[in-house]
Amino acid sequence: MTFDELEKQSAGHSVALADLLARLDWTEGLIPAIAQRADSGEVVMFAWMNRAALDETLATGRVCYYSRSKKRLWRKGEESGHVQHLVEMRIDCDGDVLLLKVEQTGPACHTNRRSCFYLRVDGDTVVVTDDPVG
Amino acid sequence: MTFDELEKQSAGHSVALADLLARLDWTEGLIPAIAQRADSGEVVMFAWMNRAALDETLATGRVCYYSRSKKRLWRKGEESGHVQHLVEMRIDCDGDVLLLKVEQTGPACHTNRRSCFYLRVDGDTVVVTDDPVG
Repeated sequence: MTFDELEKQSAGHSVALADLLARLDWTEGLIPAIAQRADSGEVVMFAWMNRAALDETLATGRVCYYSRSKKRLWRKGEESGHVQHLVEMRIDCDGDVLLLKVEQTGPACHTNRRSCFYLRVDGDTVVVTDDPVG
Repeated sequence: MTFDELEKQSAGHSVALADLLARLDWTEGLIPAIAQRADSGEVVMFAWMNRAALDETLATGRVCYYSRSKKRLWRKGEESGHVQHLVEMRIDCDGDVLLLKVEQTGPACHTNRRSCFYLRVDGDTVVVTDDPVG
């Protein structure tokens, strides 16, 4: 079933995961993924997945991205220990974005802040909202 | 101040908005934007902004994206009336993603569902979680 057909379905309708994953927008080989804390709803980071990263994440329950800079799979927390466990995955209406609800061990950001989104626009300035943790 | 320098600053430190916006990653002319309801924290959509869309959003407080399919500015709600008012904007640690906390009028999704993320992975299936509103 295509995403266009799926949007006409009512709540509770289900389709096979494997079929839908194949229909995601893999045009450029990568799909954006938003990571949100499952408990608080705080959006903590944004990264990309290729098909291998997505498959590994679903198989293991531990979030794996694709690092565009390192050009390889990036198992979140592989160096820092700040891993993400997948609580729930959502796919958007047209199959080109993923939303990951995660349990985040430690800070999510490489700066050791809780979230990567620690820069808040405030009028004509931008303010640092958080200090690194620990 | 670069994003690398900014990450060494403590909470409360501020820099000029205009300077930081110029330093966002405009390599491909577009920056991803995550829209989250300011009240509930629900992530409702994901889209892209070019510099003009971002400037207009900050100037007017009404969220404007750049439509990659229509290749023009897309004032969210221009046809549906389902506008987004910007409550707060955040920039991520390396300046290549925006997080918008918004007041969403009506449903956010073009399918008339509350959120674009109405497809939930459930084991080997994907389930429609919501019906269109109204």
